[in-house]
Amino acid sequence: MNTFGTLFRITTWGESHGKAIGVVVDGCPAGLEIDEKDIQKELDKRAPGQSEVMSPRKETDRVEILSGIFEGMTTGTPISMIIYNKDADSSKYEKIRYLLRPGHADFSYQAKYGHRDYRGGGRSSARETAARVAAGAIAKKLLEFHEIKIIAYVKELAGIKSSRMDYSQIYGNNVRCPDKNAAKKMEKAILKAKNEGDSVGGICEIIAMNVPAGLGKPIYSKLESDLGSAILGINAVKGIEFGMGFELARMRGSQSNDEFIVKNNKIATKTNHHGGILGGISTGMPIIMRAVVKPASSILKKQKTVNYKTMKREIISVEGRHDPATIVRFPPIAEAMVAIVLADHMLMAGRINPDKMG
Amino acid sequence: MNTFGTLFRITTWGESHGKAIGVVVDGCPAGLEIDEKDIQKELDKRAPGQSEVMSPRKETDRVEILSGIFEGMTTGTPISMIIYNKDADSSKYEKIRYLLRPGHADFSYQAKYGHRDYRGGGRSSARETAARVAAGAIAKKLLEFHEIKIIAYVKELAGIKSSRMDYSQIYGNNVRCPDKNAAKKMEKAILKAKNEGDSVGGICEIIAMNVPAGLGKPIYSKLESDLGSAILGINAVKGIEFGMGFELARMRGSQSNDEFIVKNNKIATKTNHHGGILGGISTGMPIIMRAVVKPASSILKKQKTVNYKTMKREIISVEGRHDPATIVRFPPIAEAMVAIVLADHMLMAGRINPDKMG
Amino acid sequence: MNTFGTLFRITTWGESHGKAIGVVVDGCPAGLEIDEKDIQKELDKRAPGQSEVMSPRKETDRVEILSGIFEGMTTGTPISMIIYNKDADSSKYEKIRYLLRPGHADFSYQAKYGHRDYRGGGRSSARETAARVAAGAIAKKLLEFHEIKIIAYVKELAGIKSSRMDYSQIYGNNVRCPDKNAAKKMEKAILKAKNEGDSVGGICEIIAMNVPAGLGKPIYSKLESDLGSAILGINAVKGIEFGMGFELARMRGSQSNDEFIVKNNKIATKTNHHGGILGGISTGMPIIMRAVVKPASSILKKQKTVNYKTMKREIISVEGRHDPATIVRFPPIAEAMVAIVLADHMLMAGRINPDKMG
Amino acid sequence: MNTFGTLFRITTWGESHGKAIGVVVDGCPAGLEIDEKDIQKELDKRAPGQSEVMSPRKETDRVEILSGIFEGMTTGTPISMIIYNKDADSSKYEKIRYLLRPGHADFSYQAKYGHRDYRGGGRSSARETAARVAAGAIAKKLLEFHEIKIIAYVKELAGIKSSRMDYSQIYGNNVRCPDKNAAKKMEKAILKAKNEGDSVGGICEIIAMNVPAGLGKPIYSKLESDLGSAILGINAVKGIEFGMGFELARMRGSQSNDEFIVKNNKIATKTNHHGGILGGISTGMPIIMRAVVKPASSILKKQKTVNYKTMKREIISVEGRHDPATIVRFPPIAEAMVAIVLADHMLMAGRINPDKMG
Repeated sequence: MNTFGTLFRITTWGESHGKAIGVVVDGCPAGLEIDEKDIQKELDKRAPGQSEVMSPRKETDRVEILSGIFEGMTTGTPISMIIYNKDADSSKYEKIRYLLRPGHADFSYQAKYGHRDYRGGGRSSARETAARVAAGAIAKKLLEFHEIKIIAYVKELAGIKSSRMDYSQIYGNNVRCPDKNAAKKMEKAILKAKNEGDSVGGICEIIAMNVPAGLGKPIYSKLESDLGSAILGINAVKGIEFGMGFELARMRGSQSNDEFIVKNNKIATKTNHHGGILGGISTGMPIIMRAVVKPASSILKKQKTVNYKTMKREIISVEGRHDPATIVRFPPIAEAMVAIVLADHMLMAGRINPDKMG
Repeated sequence: MNTFGTLFRITTWGESHGKAIGVVVDGCPAGLEIDEKDIQKELDKRAPGQSEVMSPRKETDRVEILSGIFEGMTTGTPISMIIYNKDADSSKYEKIRYLLRPGHADFSYQAKYGHRDYRGGGRSSARETAARVAAGAIAKKLLEFHEIKIIAYVKELAGIKSSRMDYSQIYGNNVRCPDKNAAKKMEKAILKAKNEGDSVGGICEIIAMNVPAGLGKPIYSKLESDLGSAILGINAVKGIEFGMGFELARMRGSQSNDEFIVKNNKIATKTNHHGGILGGISTGMPIIMRAVVKPASSILKKQKTVNYKTMKREIISVEGRHDPATIVRFPPIAEAMVAIVLADHMLMAGRINPDKMG
Repeated sequence: MNTFGTLFRITTWGESHGKAIGVVVDGCPAGLEIDEKDIQKELDKRAPGQSEVMSPRKETDRVEILSGIFEGMTTGTPISMIIYNKDADSSKYEKIRYLLRPGHADFSYQAKYGHRDYRGGGRSSARETAARVAAGAIAKKLLEFHEIKIIAYVKELAGIKSSRMDYSQIYGNNVRCPDKNAAKKMEKAILKAKNEGDSVGGICEIIAMNVPAGLGKPIYSKLESDLGSAILGINAVKGIEFGMGFELARMRGSQSNDEFIVKNNKIATKTNHHGGILGGISTGMPIIMRAVVKPASSILKKQKTVNYKTMKREIISVEGRHDPATIVRFPPIAEAMVAIVLADHMLMAGRINPDKMG
Repeated sequence: MNTFGTLFRITTWGESHGKAIGVVVDGCPAGLEIDEKDIQKELDKRAPGQSEVMSPRKETDRVEILSGIFEGMTTGTPISMIIYNKDADSSKYEKIRYLLRPGHADFSYQAKYGHRDYRGGGRSSARETAARVAAGAIAKKLLEFHEIKIIAYVKELAGIKSSRMDYSQIYGNNVRCPDKNAAKKMEKAILKAKNEGDSVGGICEIIAMNVPAGLGKPIYSKLESDLGSAILGINAVKGIEFGMGFELARMRGSQSNDEFIVKNNKIATKTNHHGGILGGISTGMPIIMRAVVKPASSILKKQKTVNYKTMKREIISVEGRHDPATIVRFPPIAEAMVAIVLADHMLMAGRINPDKMG
């Protein structure tokens, strides 16, 4: 399934070395002002080639809107967006065509489909996430009307933790970290790994602010389920936690329970261990989640593997212009997916009119 | 949405203090032998009142099959199962009707629906999970034909870690732990918390063995997404991780990548840091995941809260026969949800005939 | 799939000769006043045994609500309803166990599932529609708030056409016909066929009034698609048409186009050839559709058929207490399905708050 | 919702006067040989400008495949196809911008969305169906492996009935009719209406051959429901019937029931009044359905209408290069939608492997 969402739905398509990638956004109400610049701005945040810590690929990632917008406004019909692939160099993949790259989807795709586009990651490439970012830009615009804001940043990288939370810093450094000092150390750690032909992992924290109380569905569309599904659907993510997350395993109920209080005549909680969600439904407190992003699988360092045609063991060194720290490009993708889920839930809870902007 | 799954679908219903709870299982092929005993066996694993570390409630949880089975075999039509509520004591809830229990869904349900069944947890009660376990029993039966086996156990509780992995022990102790010695310590920790009117949290590990390579859909129905959504949809779960999970944040690519090898003429990996899933698709290695279960919110200990009718602050002490360690009853629920997801993906991948048993 | 709908969803289960049948209604907002009498009233309209023109079976069809209602109001959680099977006589089916009843689903179910409940129609029995009527009763209640009213009646039976449209007559005769005189003739025709061991077919017209303009989704959830799917999903229906329907094949555009006019300061059309739907979206004019219901397949008259076990030809005479004119019991089922579709579209168009009643 | 299907899913997008239209096909197994010529061939069948009885628009309708095909074969990933709009002349729509074209979706779209692309039909234009035909071409290829063949033709036009069934004639005349003589009369009737600034309607019959017994799901995904929903989702369709259809209203059960027989050691029926579907499930007999297509709404003839801005009455004459008989271009669209539904049901019934071609 390449479609995600219930009322706000996205359908993505495209391979890293094919002609183009794209997305169809369905369920955006009519009357939302949007143009290509709104989309491009988000895409630029995830584009490679911005610094030494990223892949030097020059993907211009120029988005084009093909439908659904008329006279600067959405019409309620599907919004189709396309990004042509330009800087795709497939030659390097020819020689490792039958070698299973460790940590990659090569083997599982082969087992499933028998036939695959072996150039780059094909459909499993991180490039596909550009389409999600484009869709997320529309979801963000929609949420802005309700002052819902989503921020994602690198919380930890190669064991280095961010301790200050200065959001204004996030796009002021090369590693999307809200802590200037930690950012410098992270950058060094990435370059060190890169020089050794290796890669590093990290943790991204995502916060959604001003989400009204009452979003989410009990049981199977709990906010944790839907946000979890969205984030775990991004390449390289191997875990997600909400609020205090795994720390809760070592807490007592009397510690983890958040005391209810009255603040500005509204019910709130004193602490936010629950991360803004109780019983699967938002409480009005900030929604907080963290995702772990594994180190990039594509590394120059030599690794042992198997040639699935000969079934013989071989040595592989994955050449190409890879990211030594994919986590650095992760925040805008996470923001996009969270925006899509929240836009969907705002629609499902009747907080946004599904047909036309209020 | 109270329906979960694509081809193998479950729809649950019922409140903790209503007449009954139940589930409709849709999409099970015809010709599967099943009777109430198969279901009851799984339900008994999650029943309360089995030891001092559990709630003393006596829920007999007697399941009755109402449709979809004829002459001992499924017919391909929906299987409806019902469990009547017997031992429901609502009196204790009357006096805390307007008090928001910290850590509970009271406030978020009230914000969403305006009107709710305040007795017990109503729909948000853990009791609802009995219906999932009943559905999971059918999924398990279906998976058995393909020798897929799912095991869940308590990996960590109140900071105490299980270090031995003797699966035969799991149901030999009161805390569902595969490590006899750790189990004793865990039991003590629970009783200590209980005596102090408090509760503890923990981590449950779930392993699915013999899952064939090739299950899962790239992009939005990655196995991690669907398993994650299923597990995060269980009460009290606040995080999930696959394979090495959050540890990956501190690893290098050269460490985390699993080397491909040939074993018994089949491609496998030497290590299993990826937890049996690459690119969202199963690799044939065991699928490994861990979920964090927060300490039970219902505690006898006094907590400050708000009366949402008067908007005044009050003190609450949640009386009733609560579980001091809900994690102890979690493993069969986790097994059920994982079985449901895998049965669904076996059907979606054409590995199980959707109409009739092979 | 035994689930129908997007936001307002019903899941039905049960066989004609099993323990019970039932339905789970998901997506009804909280705060709707409803009790078993509201449901029973609708069920009574489709119950057999009301006159000589119906099956003499005594299905009391007593509905019981098991969940989702608290203190007389919906809570937003799934509403489970059950109807126990009482008057099921399976003995007559034993001797025709392997004979394929002409016009029945015996062969196609056997081809699909290999294994089936051969007693009565099993899952394919018209009895299953009682569950839909129960669900429809809730949808109707929901629509009443918006003054949307649905009326279904027998328009034609055994070639006899209803020419007067006196809605007050519909439940004043045994054949659910708004034309008193036609009703008498229809009744005679049924009894004649019955005496000859035969059955008759007919056409049911359904009208939905006060549906606001703007419901429906262009392209694949056009109102015609969704209403068509719902009505064609009822047993014995073999065709549906909207507005002028098949007559349009012989009309010119200048005749079929409905002139737009202004009426009470609102835009309307002078005629209603389009049946209240243009471009798949409601126009505010009454929605009009007609369904053809084939003559009941179960007839006493001898028919040639095949024994699928011996593959030999045999003669069958389908004994039992069958309806000679199933169309007579069709209107309340059609009303229910139309109500369910419209409630779903009211929710999808944001005209009904999905969480709580206004 | 602009997505249709469960396992074989299509998502279409685009407006008649926008940059392009397109479709994403999801769920096609890997390993199916396909190229642009296979798609183009189907598109050419519905292209306008082929004769005097069609719109003289010159839509070259050149399809381009953007993803999902590698080395001539599908990869199991989504297939994105695009058709650029070339010959779009919007000038004529400027002057009727606020006039509601009778029979068109102008008013209902305006009521729903408030904002719309008024040029041509925008999203409600028949042009959108080109995207469905492209998707249908892939479904057809998939069905060919199982020798399932779908044929659609004009059965009736302007009251003239086709009486011979010579399938080889269908694309040998301008009106897609299997009866050469009737075709000539139909052509004359169209030209007469065209000269009078008017349009005509008709009936299209669609037959699916070699569909195996056992497709379809009882209750809500009956083949009639899903085929009905698909066909009723095509512009201008106002009714559908299966087998004997509306004629069944005047038949007795003893006449309409099809006698079961044994033919070539397989169970079949002697007649096919049921149109290949019993209990919602295919019987192995040809599936037969008929759809009524209303006369085109766009006519040159003067009609009275309303200007929705001034709310004043005005006279409209819809200029432009319109089809006087849209039914003539309908058969390939109907074939496409039926192919999509059957491919979906073949997958759902496990008759086609969802991951890779056998």
